[in-house]
Amino acid sequence: MKPALLKGTRDFGPKELLKREFIFNIIRECFSLFGYAPLETPAMESMATLTGKYGEEGDRLLFRILNNGDFLADVPDEHLKAKDSKLVSAAIVKRGLRYDLTVPFARYVVMNQTDISFPFKRYQIQPVWRADRPQKGRYQEFYQCDADVVGSDSLWYEAELLAIYARVFSVLKLPVIIKYNNRKILQGLAEAAGVADRFQVMTNLIDKIDKKGIDGVIKEMTSSGFPDSAIAYLSNTLKSVNSLDELKLVMRSDIGMKGIEELAAVEEGLKTSLLDPDAAVQVKFDITLARGLGYYTGFICEVVAGGDVQMGSIGGGGRYDNLTGVFGLPNVSGVGISFGAERIYDVMEELGLWPKDLETTLQVMILTMDTESFVTGTKILALLRNVGINSDIYPSPVKFQKQIKYANDKKVPYVIVIGPEEIAANKYALKNMRAGTQVSKSIDELIGFKYA
Amino acid sequence: MKPALLKGTRDFGPKELLKREFIFNIIRECFSLFGYAPLETPAMESMATLTGKYGEEGDRLLFRILNNGDFLADVPDEHLKAKDSKLVSAAIVKRGLRYDLTVPFARYVVMNQTDISFPFKRYQIQPVWRADRPQKGRYQEFYQCDADVVGSDSLWYEAELLAIYARVFSVLKLPVIIKYNNRKILQGLAEAAGVADRFQVMTNLIDKIDKKGIDGVIKEMTSSGFPDSAIAYLSNTLKSVNSLDELKLVMRSDIGMKGIEELAAVEEGLKTSLLDPDAAVQVKFDITLARGLGYYTGFICEVVAGGDVQMGSIGGGGRYDNLTGVFGLPNVSGVGISFGAERIYDVMEELGLWPKDLETTLQVMILTMDTESFVTGTKILALLRNVGINSDIYPSPVKFQKQIKYANDKKVPYVIVIGPEEIAANKYALKNMRAGTQVSKSIDELIGFKYA
Repeated sequence: MKPALLKGTRDFGPKELLKREFIFNIIRECFSLFGYAPLETPAMESMATLTGKYGEEGDRLLFRILNNGDFLADVPDEHLKAKDSKLVSAAIVKRGLRYDLTVPFARYVVMNQTDISFPFKRYQIQPVWRADRPQKGRYQEFYQCDADVVGSDSLWYEAELLAIYARVFSVLKLPVIIKYNNRKILQGLAEAAGVADRFQVMTNLIDKIDKKGIDGVIKEMTSSGFPDSAIAYLSNTLKSVNSLDELKLVMRSDIGMKGIEELAAVEEGLKTSLLDPDAAVQVKFDITLARGLGYYTGFICEVVAGGDVQMGSIGGGGRYDNLTGVFGLPNVSGVGISFGAERIYDVMEELGLWPKDLETTLQVMILTMDTESFVTGTKILALLRNVGINSDIYPSPVKFQKQIKYANDKKVPYVIVIGPEEIAANKYALKNMRAGTQVSKSIDELIGFKYA
Repeated sequence: MKPALLKGTRDFGPKELLKREFIFNIIRECFSLFGYAPLETPAMESMATLTGKYGEEGDRLLFRILNNGDFLADVPDEHLKAKDSKLVSAAIVKRGLRYDLTVPFARYVVMNQTDISFPFKRYQIQPVWRADRPQKGRYQEFYQCDADVVGSDSLWYEAELLAIYARVFSVLKLPVIIKYNNRKILQGLAEAAGVADRFQVMTNLIDKIDKKGIDGVIKEMTSSGFPDSAIAYLSNTLKSVNSLDELKLVMRSDIGMKGIEELAAVEEGLKTSLLDPDAAVQVKFDITLARGLGYYTGFICEVVAGGDVQMGSIGGGGRYDNLTGVFGLPNVSGVGISFGAERIYDVMEELGLWPKDLETTLQVMILTMDTESFVTGTKILALLRNVGINSDIYPSPVKFQKQIKYANDKKVPYVIVIGPEEIAANKYALKNMRAGTQVSKSIDELIGFKYA
């Protein structure tokens, strides 16, 4: 048989994986720096946990795991006869694959509520599975990368999470714009415009400003039958307001003022929480930021790549007030952010932002001319490894051309060459494979060398 | 609803995960030190890739993923009517969950054979899924942790892989016995005993010596009808032979002599490959080591916990000659080892071998007395984080008892206490939570402090 990957899935070979780990490690270290603790939940969750949490579309995209053994035994004959996939599925499946990291996190919090000290700050970096139609940049198995705090309504955490975004993208040297807003401000706009009853429609329209521009969206408001006065107010506000102070002047709504107050506290927190961000990282209030997801109730944020990169959101998050309610634990407020790791990878690739030494973890490889040199090589190798230098040896003294090609293919930055003359002189050739230069070193010098 | 985990699956909360990562990181670093490159393959593989690779029992234990959409549409009515789970399963499932890391690795090698430079040294640390009946210590979702070299028959790699075992368990400070043998030696024993035609039966019996002792196994050989002369030869050899030199004297078989020769080369390699192993780590030839798996063709090895720990194998491996043959690429020799990470965890737990500082990655937490102190606290926090100290602040100046309990629960080793007096004096209380001691520090001193 000719083996193949399933559509929508990928292997990550060494070179790709080292790049992915470069991103994940920076995110992980930043989460730890800010006091977030790691959590991992199983890939398989009970269908009862997963179903009904992601809307109808989400339910359709869940991967379901067939019960083992004689799974048809207890299925009612009439369901089989009717070929009713939905009813039969319910009878032959009790497990599904994790669809996101949020629902398993909520389940974990509820199951461990008596042991957890709140506020609980956790991060989670794991794959999720969705039966979406595979296409360029969209996979059926991909990583999510989330940090959340639950059990506190302190606005300090909003500032902290923005600071995490700023820090991670600064370290990645990836220019981004980190935008924030507050759902209460959008509610206030709807109230002040006199369209409070059409809040969700308005939000969904504002959410499209990214793609259609303000004028395009205003047009859609007109065709959706928004009153002229509302359109005039919204158009003017969305176009002209750039700060909370400006917004205060035109905000005629209590809930809107509450949103402004909350964001003012976040901005106060930002003054201290940001850690020397790169100049290319902007953090700013954006009144046109809406975010589609219904469950955000206050602060919302989103990250987009700066400069000329055409790539949607590479991160987003917000505050929610009822994450765990569906599992029987109401009134737990939380706020969280997510990194779109797959897209961040694509942007890093597009902008060529990878560090140079990322192709291998190997620092040096030993090549040998004959059997005696090979034995000497293994001794030097052990000395190198003993001091923590990632090193290797070609496993036999075959033709030198073959060995040097192997070292080249493995992208190893240095090779040590050992032959009878080198052994006689106790001076070994150390070749810098990138620079093409070569020096002569004793064994002690080889061990002390910085294979940067 | 009351949320629950599926049987056989686990959440890993922060404390458990940090311990698991401690093990994985040591293994990962050691793999890198020895020149192995990371690989990850998808959780979902095509059923064509998985089926028939693990025997009948394995096929039964595969987790199958139901096709999405109207999966029953094309199933022949008669299969449904007959409630034939096997035939229906074949029609409604095209994906399965990874059962081990070896088969996906073989698939990867075959699919990428033209891009890979051989010898290809890869490691892989990922979960696998098996529909085994869940019980204490046996899970349906668990991690495997493998390193393999393919595309070389050099016996240097056998020595290197034994050195990796020795290194990892030395660093973990876990006393172990690392045993090795060679399948060809077992074949030689069968030939020399005149039971070459019953090689697999003999191997399976020898494999039970761990549990039943040599005498118990000899008894079973008798009841299995092995000739007296064979039993006398095997009993004597298995009981008395402790080294290759001793074995040479009684080995009357060419294939057996070949096995001895191979192991002699491995022992030669061991002289240089071992990196200062802990005295509690033994590496030794064991003629009674058989290993059940059929696909090993030469070198085999196994790790058991030393001392009084009652726990089966915590690692094993060997050389195979036809890993990729099933996917159409014959004659690729390989050798690999596997770490039983879940069992290693249990042994570490049983022996209390965890380092002390493993309960949190947090180094210090700031507690504050009033609103002004909180603002000062966030400034100090940013300074700490700026120099890479994992730190946090309680998000509001609530009652001190509540804050200190939180710090305690999070197992943070240090807290900094900030109140109006501390601000006035620019001297802050730094409390060592483990020692219960307290000192007074300026901001500069707090930033320069080693929160070990």
